[in-house]
Amino acid sequence: MHGGMGSVRNVSDVHSADVEGALARIRTRIHHTPVVTCASLDRLVGAGLRFKCENLQKTGSFKIRGACNAVYSLDDRDASRGVAAHSSGNHAAALAQAAAWRGIPATVVVPESASPVKRAAAERYGATIVPCGAGQAAREQALDDLVSRTGAVVVHPHDSPEVIAGQGTAVLEMCMQVPDLDAVLVPVGGGGLLAGSALAARRCPGPVSVIGVEPERVDDAARSLRAGVRQPPTDAGSVADGLLTSLGELPFRIIQSEVDDIVTVPEADIVRAMRLIWERAKLIVEPSSAVPFAALLGDDLDLGGKTVGVVLSGGNVNLDALPW
Amino acid sequence: MHGGMGSVRNVSDVHSADVEGALARIRTRIHHTPVVTCASLDRLVGAGLRFKCENLQKTGSFKIRGACNAVYSLDDRDASRGVAAHSSGNHAAALAQAAAWRGIPATVVVPESASPVKRAAAERYGATIVPCGAGQAAREQALDDLVSRTGAVVVHPHDSPEVIAGQGTAVLEMCMQVPDLDAVLVPVGGGGLLAGSALAARRCPGPVSVIGVEPERVDDAARSLRAGVRQPPTDAGSVADGLLTSLGELPFRIIQSEVDDIVTVPEADIVRAMRLIWERAKLIVEPSSAVPFAALLGDDLDLGGKTVGVVLSGGNVNLDALPW
Repeated sequence: MHGGMGSVRNVSDVHSADVEGALARIRTRIHHTPVVTCASLDRLVGAGLRFKCENLQKTGSFKIRGACNAVYSLDDRDASRGVAAHSSGNHAAALAQAAAWRGIPATVVVPESASPVKRAAAERYGATIVPCGAGQAAREQALDDLVSRTGAVVVHPHDSPEVIAGQGTAVLEMCMQVPDLDAVLVPVGGGGLLAGSALAARRCPGPVSVIGVEPERVDDAARSLRAGVRQPPTDAGSVADGLLTSLGELPFRIIQSEVDDIVTVPEADIVRAMRLIWERAKLIVEPSSAVPFAALLGDDLDLGGKTVGVVLSGGNVNLDALPW
Repeated sequence: MHGGMGSVRNVSDVHSADVEGALARIRTRIHHTPVVTCASLDRLVGAGLRFKCENLQKTGSFKIRGACNAVYSLDDRDASRGVAAHSSGNHAAALAQAAAWRGIPATVVVPESASPVKRAAAERYGATIVPCGAGQAAREQALDDLVSRTGAVVVHPHDSPEVIAGQGTAVLEMCMQVPDLDAVLVPVGGGGLLAGSALAARRCPGPVSVIGVEPERVDDAARSLRAGVRQPPTDAGSVADGLLTSLGELPFRIIQSEVDDIVTVPEADIVRAMRLIWERAKLIVEPSSAVPFAALLGDDLDLGGKTVGVVLSGGNVNLDALPW
């Protein structure tokens, strides 16, 4: 669990207008990613899919949106202290890149078990890496030590209003690119992207259903939404390694009030979905990014004939270890 | 060799205005594909790359542009006889799709040795497949038999003014998407895409160098350009299986007068280029599509600091048989 109630602001601190403010702040620095279609996948699932290609985003994932908004929201004095986070994945690379753009140091606490590919990416963008042991407690201890030593500002991967507003900019762009959108499917891990997307969808020209999709094996967000209170994460793993993070408190409160539903998908459908996106849509996506499309391979959603936005959240994958 | 001099029209039969006409004819049917950038590949080669994503095009390659232009250039009476071609690859799927859109039959002669993935694609788009033996002679005999039996109109994959004009529309679009383009790199097999691209580049706002890139092992286009007369193909294979076709007569004449240079690349650079595009640009490209970028990994081109268009010609690849 991250921080607890005391460390997050009231849900009313993040509004859909903040997503528009974030887009204005970051738009010259990030890619306005394309929306692509694929007739063969449309036929397969019986809907009009609109893939928002955050796999083609700078640093290879949507995470640069939130990190960039957070880094450029700091005043000069705070920024000069540098930024820090713990992350084993795309947030690390994103924070490193955003800090490099602003010319401030970034330090990332990375578990020794993290993917060497993702760790190397954070280093390539200029972050200082601080290794730590396995487990949430070790990560948080290492980050606390770092902050008390350097005074760096922590940019949390999802429990932050600026990060949530930044992540929402992908769906805000998509609403302008696809004015007739009926629904949007978004992967859920910590919940920052889903929360931001739900706020963004309020700015769409028409009503848009916002649906989160989560691996069945790590379904704490779906259980939390049903229970009305955050549920503990499972210990299980998933091929969707970017979604293992447990749901954050601030994202949860936004999701509770703004999101239509969260559905879950089995592992086999995630792998099948990933392969279909590679083979038919010709896009490299990481397993986590295939999770929303996987929901369309099952029977849980009733989106036949609808225009459905699918956020392809990232494309950072080890080409030597494909899951098929 | 395809047809010989008697079967092709004078080079003056294809003009840059025909590329504009082709775009007007096909633009509502095909994708206006995105141009994407990749900072990490820019740094690697020291140029500003603009990838024109024909891998995201309908049927998975630029071939739909030429096939669609050819099919919709037929008058109703000719069209009613159906269309035919011999092809083991992307042209087969493209012709099948274009014919399906127009509601006419398509028949494709496919060697029994052809990739089952590409054959299945042509069938999925509705073509009738006629198998034939190996070698150019067997393919042409099977096509001749078919035409005398059915009266179908042959749509040649590159020795056709309509096909060349259609293929040029990708670079015509790119010239509008990237007004400051300095050069464009295009793969060469039969030469239809390169010839069409060179005609299209004349319509760009500024001067654009048009450079063909060919695998070293199948370098008949480069040798032909140097010799001033079409040279026989080599027997060699290449990982870039889409570029094994020998240079066509009509494309050659256009290339001679309109193209700045043709350079060649070794096999190892093609594989390395393909992997880099997958890993960094997050785009699935087939080996032939990696050939132009491969030229930037060597020292033959002097494009440092330039804005360079790279046509990613297709993304139809067997995910179970990757070349690394």
